[in-house]
Amino acid sequence: MKLLIIGGSDAGISAALRARELDRETEITVLLADDFPNYSICGLPFYLSGETQDWRSLAHRTEFEGIDIRRGHRATRINTVAKTVDVSTEGAASLTFRYDKLVIGTGAGPVEPPIEGSRYPGVFLLHTMQDSFDVHRYLETAKPQRAVIVGAGYIGLEMADALTHRGIEVTIASRTTTVLATVDAEFGKSVSEELQRHGVKVYTSVEVDRIARAGDQLHVSGSSHFEQDCEMVLIAVGVKPHATLGADAGLDIGIKGALAVNRKMESKLPDIYVAGDCAETFHRLLNRHTYLPLGTTAHKQGRVAAENALGGNREFAGSLGTQVVKIFGLVIARTGLRHHEALRESFHPFTAESTANDHKAYYPGATQLRTRVTGNTETGRLLGAQIMGRWGTEVSKRLDIFATAIFHGMSVDQISDLDLSYTPPLSSPWDPVQMACQNWCSKLEMIAAEEVTA
Amino acid sequence: MKLLIIGGSDAGISAALRARELDRETEITVLLADDFPNYSICGLPFYLSGETQDWRSLAHRTEFEGIDIRRGHRATRINTVAKTVDVSTEGAASLTFRYDKLVIGTGAGPVEPPIEGSRYPGVFLLHTMQDSFDVHRYLETAKPQRAVIVGAGYIGLEMADALTHRGIEVTIASRTTTVLATVDAEFGKSVSEELQRHGVKVYTSVEVDRIARAGDQLHVSGSSHFEQDCEMVLIAVGVKPHATLGADAGLDIGIKGALAVNRKMESKLPDIYVAGDCAETFHRLLNRHTYLPLGTTAHKQGRVAAENALGGNREFAGSLGTQVVKIFGLVIARTGLRHHEALRESFHPFTAESTANDHKAYYPGATQLRTRVTGNTETGRLLGAQIMGRWGTEVSKRLDIFATAIFHGMSVDQISDLDLSYTPPLSSPWDPVQMACQNWCSKLEMIAAEEVTA
Repeated sequence: MKLLIIGGSDAGISAALRARELDRETEITVLLADDFPNYSICGLPFYLSGETQDWRSLAHRTEFEGIDIRRGHRATRINTVAKTVDVSTEGAASLTFRYDKLVIGTGAGPVEPPIEGSRYPGVFLLHTMQDSFDVHRYLETAKPQRAVIVGAGYIGLEMADALTHRGIEVTIASRTTTVLATVDAEFGKSVSEELQRHGVKVYTSVEVDRIARAGDQLHVSGSSHFEQDCEMVLIAVGVKPHATLGADAGLDIGIKGALAVNRKMESKLPDIYVAGDCAETFHRLLNRHTYLPLGTTAHKQGRVAAENALGGNREFAGSLGTQVVKIFGLVIARTGLRHHEALRESFHPFTAESTANDHKAYYPGATQLRTRVTGNTETGRLLGAQIMGRWGTEVSKRLDIFATAIFHGMSVDQISDLDLSYTPPLSSPWDPVQMACQNWCSKLEMIAAEEVTA
Repeated sequence: MKLLIIGGSDAGISAALRARELDRETEITVLLADDFPNYSICGLPFYLSGETQDWRSLAHRTEFEGIDIRRGHRATRINTVAKTVDVSTEGAASLTFRYDKLVIGTGAGPVEPPIEGSRYPGVFLLHTMQDSFDVHRYLETAKPQRAVIVGAGYIGLEMADALTHRGIEVTIASRTTTVLATVDAEFGKSVSEELQRHGVKVYTSVEVDRIARAGDQLHVSGSSHFEQDCEMVLIAVGVKPHATLGADAGLDIGIKGALAVNRKMESKLPDIYVAGDCAETFHRLLNRHTYLPLGTTAHKQGRVAAENALGGNREFAGSLGTQVVKIFGLVIARTGLRHHEALRESFHPFTAESTANDHKAYYPGATQLRTRVTGNTETGRLLGAQIMGRWGTEVSKRLDIFATAIFHGMSVDQISDLDLSYTPPLSSPWDPVQMACQNWCSKLEMIAAEEVTA
């Protein structure tokens, strides 16, 4: 049996490893367009900040025993009748690979917004290892003093942290009304403050439309009279799926241009599976597909695709859009649906925020966690949660308690039933996660009582 | 309606607060034998170490609006026919309190092992606020240079840390074969090493049987030729339920001397509820009652008792024996059943340990987490987990992912389906929790394959 995998990032390598683990006989080949199998692109900001000294350490792994990794092999065409994939390689003639089962994991690429001057030297999109080498070389040779980052999502903000760490003056320009628009504005404001506390200038509701050049200098301008001189511009306004290869082979395009799949990661064509950032994402709470390109999801989908390609019967359990990011000393995490997302889906959400110490205040070093809980007032069911706190206060894995609870359809009230761990230096007898849920229930009861009185 | 609560620690106050929250009309009275309502006895080691400067800050809360807190009121007898409780107070005559509903939350006290000389000055049991004041005064006035701690459970080890923090030379003598016997020996050995790294002398498999006194000096001796001079001895070998008051009133005594209850925290007598360390604990995995006195459980049981006392219908969801402790720079956490516990219960356990970085190694500061997973080989179900790692690596809330998973009866394999949060400074695309479960599955498959071959 020949298992051919197009793409050597999270989804592709995860599929290859799982196939190798399940079956020693299958021939596994991974076609890799570049030279960097299984690199952590989530790690690029830390390489560029200087915190990660050697880019080679960004590899999730470097040993691929029993897997035929073909670097510099770009798949150009899938022939679904002959069950072959045409591949171009640098220098060599075009090659053709046969498959019995095919996994497409072509990933995603950065959205390129229509900004005049976005191809000038010193202006970068950041997505691949090669992008990162280009940025690194520019940082080392041009030694920019000021940078403008267009976009205030995860990568934009991590790069603001990274470039500040290098001593560069950073300005963020985002068209959203608050930074980190994947969490509520109440948290976004605190993230802005954290950025500003570290010297980053933050401009929101700004549509950058032009980059001008004068010698080594770049001048960035946009709506709301935004004007900023700098020597470097980084554009990070989101990603779009690399779906062309699959689409040309006859696969359906689904949500947001991603390749359509079912929960077994099967495409509509026999023996062709799709996984990772080029594929749709089944959402566990919405019970339908959406598009949520995340490394964690790519790993899971790759694994599921491989199991099914080898005759298994596993479904992707679904994403909850769980994400966490560290910006300077602040950690912000989210899972599930936010209030407006739940409203849009015709749930009946209620959202309440609470504040609690991460551990007992009598033990030194306690700091405050802010937790926002969204639940369905009709069913009591937990729909989503967001936590923000200082780095080192277990924000990320606290959020995962919520993620695990939502996975199981728990009600907000039931969270108090969980037997969670407690010691004074690390929590309270009711964990902040539970206090936040009790707060949600109390506030909802108060509102109900007021409505009865009124 | 008169709700009377005997005991003003975790269970009692939690019951009072929940009752107040649910109903504004109920008269709520809490009888408190001492002067310290709702104090965190888990915090005593940190007060004695000097990390918590003011003992008053150990109070979980100091405001009890709408709750009649009676300090120095020791309940001496429950008259279940007249529905009254007799109370002795210092100075005043005996009082009698009427109740419609009664919650007994009399807690637990330290086990006093048969050690000769255990009443000498300088020898302490540590459980109540008063005990802690006595120890504190002794530390300040007698200024002991060396201490022997009998027992290597949570309190014994936390006190070893605390006294070392004060500059006292500490020797631990435990009759168990490894310290912290609530986790596997593999972890216990590492805890021993951490203790020794901080100068604590550790003796295991030692039964201390005698304390001798010569002037200000104490001499502790026991089996295995254990001999140690010191100026202070702390005995911390476990707790036993304060069940006499309830038993005298006709309540049944259940497991390990605790008052028998059902999952609604009802005793066998009408209108009498029992909660906290004096009560049995329903175990969610064993599906029967056991005895697991923990503050987290006491809070939950008090809350359940109050809801039911006020006409509700809530069951205690059950304990998993989730616990965490910080010993110097090490955090050790457990939940569910360990291998031998599962064996004893006729499960078919398999246990596998794995090691993973707490976050991506390319981001500075990664350290190793050790995770032990126990699952049922017949059903695949997750039975228990233990994690050990450095303080600050989210050990405690990672363990809670396991606790939440066990709560829902997940299989070990299913853990990989959870959508957990990831950013390189805080985790990996597969969280160490998931890697540990994948390791369990792989090892089990390998063993199965070997058995087929053999």
